[in-house]
Amino acid sequence: MSSTPSNLSAESLRSFITRSFLACGFPEHNARVAADLMTQADLNGQDGHGVFRLPQYVNRILSGGMNVDPKFKVIEERTATALIDGDNGLGHLVMHHATQMAMNKAETTGISWVGARHSNHAGPASLYAMMPLKKDMIGIYVAVGSANHLPPWGGTEMLLSTNPIAIAVPSGQNPPIVLDMATTVAAYGKVKTAAQRGETIPEGWMIDKQGTPLTDPTRASEGFLLPIGGPKGYGLALIFGILAGTLNGAAFGQDVIDFNADSKTTTNTGHFIIALDIKAFTDPSKFRADIDRVWGEMKSSPKLPGVDEIRLPGERLARIKGERSASGIPVAPALKAQLDKLAERLGIAPL
Amino acid sequence: MSSTPSNLSAESLRSFITRSFLACGFPEHNARVAADLMTQADLNGQDGHGVFRLPQYVNRILSGGMNVDPKFKVIEERTATALIDGDNGLGHLVMHHATQMAMNKAETTGISWVGARHSNHAGPASLYAMMPLKKDMIGIYVAVGSANHLPPWGGTEMLLSTNPIAIAVPSGQNPPIVLDMATTVAAYGKVKTAAQRGETIPEGWMIDKQGTPLTDPTRASEGFLLPIGGPKGYGLALIFGILAGTLNGAAFGQDVIDFNADSKTTTNTGHFIIALDIKAFTDPSKFRADIDRVWGEMKSSPKLPGVDEIRLPGERLARIKGERSASGIPVAPALKAQLDKLAERLGIAPL
Repeated sequence: MSSTPSNLSAESLRSFITRSFLACGFPEHNARVAADLMTQADLNGQDGHGVFRLPQYVNRILSGGMNVDPKFKVIEERTATALIDGDNGLGHLVMHHATQMAMNKAETTGISWVGARHSNHAGPASLYAMMPLKKDMIGIYVAVGSANHLPPWGGTEMLLSTNPIAIAVPSGQNPPIVLDMATTVAAYGKVKTAAQRGETIPEGWMIDKQGTPLTDPTRASEGFLLPIGGPKGYGLALIFGILAGTLNGAAFGQDVIDFNADSKTTTNTGHFIIALDIKAFTDPSKFRADIDRVWGEMKSSPKLPGVDEIRLPGERLARIKGERSASGIPVAPALKAQLDKLAERLGIAPL
Repeated sequence: MSSTPSNLSAESLRSFITRSFLACGFPEHNARVAADLMTQADLNGQDGHGVFRLPQYVNRILSGGMNVDPKFKVIEERTATALIDGDNGLGHLVMHHATQMAMNKAETTGISWVGARHSNHAGPASLYAMMPLKKDMIGIYVAVGSANHLPPWGGTEMLLSTNPIAIAVPSGQNPPIVLDMATTVAAYGKVKTAAQRGETIPEGWMIDKQGTPLTDPTRASEGFLLPIGGPKGYGLALIFGILAGTLNGAAFGQDVIDFNADSKTTTNTGHFIIALDIKAFTDPSKFRADIDRVWGEMKSSPKLPGVDEIRLPGERLARIKGERSASGIPVAPALKAQLDKLAERLGIAPL
């Protein structure tokens, strides 16, 4: 098999994902919303969170572990908050709905926080944090990760996930500032990629149960990821889990299902989105100009020896999005083969 | 001079801080509120942020760099948000006011976000994050730090402060979970303490302008603090600075005044507080019980070799608060001498 990726258009990807979900029994609108968000993830360069996840999602659906036609319920509501029950639907659909709701509320109240439970994996955090940008709003998204990969600081029992946060802030002339980060030094996906490639991982990513640095990624199951800043990252992972999980009545700690290992059990994934209306604080065009000034200050700092360029969070995302919108999304042959198998299984036209 | 600290009661500290501020011209109510919060910082074990800061605050006041009788103005307001102008008052007063306002708003709307500009240093972040706890609310506080200590990732120009975040979550039987952290591996105060003690600092805290680890804290001015998780902590410091500074029309980046070096120029410090009403999501007693369950799960994880105990964020704070409430607050002789000099300068009874 060749190892050169084929470049596929966003449209062909979107269309393939749509027909996969339709074949699974998704209503048309839901299939389109989910396909659009997953394709967006690939366009944005978040390769581990786009079409790459489709076989896993379909597997869960066909195993009865995810609801193809969820009816969202509002469990609690105030003028600026809501708690939504996602009825075990795909996380993309739940969070798309929750973010729309948060944006509508923030239009009046200035800020809104909408939490969700009984949801599922929703792809990259930045998808939802970026949605409010078009309304001159700042977005903040936090999720309980879909598998536990680290213990509390000083412990050895896997009780915490890499619980990510994304924050998106609009700029004027520059791309939006978009931070999308796990609370661990490295995401688990990077460890898996290193294992596939036969590479070692740097010290500082993982330790084993004796506290010794673990650099052989094929031994990943014997150790755990390290949080950023040691106890600080542990604190962030813990509190993000409480805010996105416990507060919403979603899974956190021992209740978290490893969705890689188990395709049947309801995950009860929790997330929340904050939409913050810039217009409630200042004139958005003034704010955008101020962010451009911040951008310029950071970019023009003198650099450390060996550093080519100072980057802002979201800069790489915008660059890749531009490139892939123009020349397509690279899909590796191994993934293409998996998607061809999926097409066969679902009886649909291949990608 | 003996190096044994004297243990002083919270009441004597509170009273001394109050009369210091009164001597500076603070209205009585403001003197009491500020003294109460600063004493709380000392009770909570945040020694670098309590009475330790009093000489610096008084110095700024007497240099004309801070307003002793600020009139807060609401610049923008929606049902769930506000932007306050602190009229160059002490940060404690501005944030005490902002947090009250946020709690009042959240009572109805479920969440509130109140930002402030033209404020000043406000002591430890957790003071404000913990205020909403008594209303069954979660508190989140973020500030632009009062001096720049790090460059953007890969750069060498000091454009970012250690921009801290504090998040406080109530529990049932256990202390509240309180995370209070700088976005750098070490706070600058820890480096100064190591220099005073003639100790070296660990690799990973600072680098110099060549990118080489800096472990001699007397050379601190030649280098800069490292953010947690490298580019991740840089992203957090940057975005916290935007949300607490730029969005509020407060200083961020090149505009930040080093309040250690300059006692006259208005700092235009920015902060924000979020109050999130647990009652808008679930029954608070159920939530508290759930947090106790999370607490228990974390505490009972098996431990790494050499680890005595797994701690939750806020556990140490609660223990110290208990000890100091019972047996007083240790004040080192060097600090006591400074405060005696201050009393003389202000013509008030010493501590």
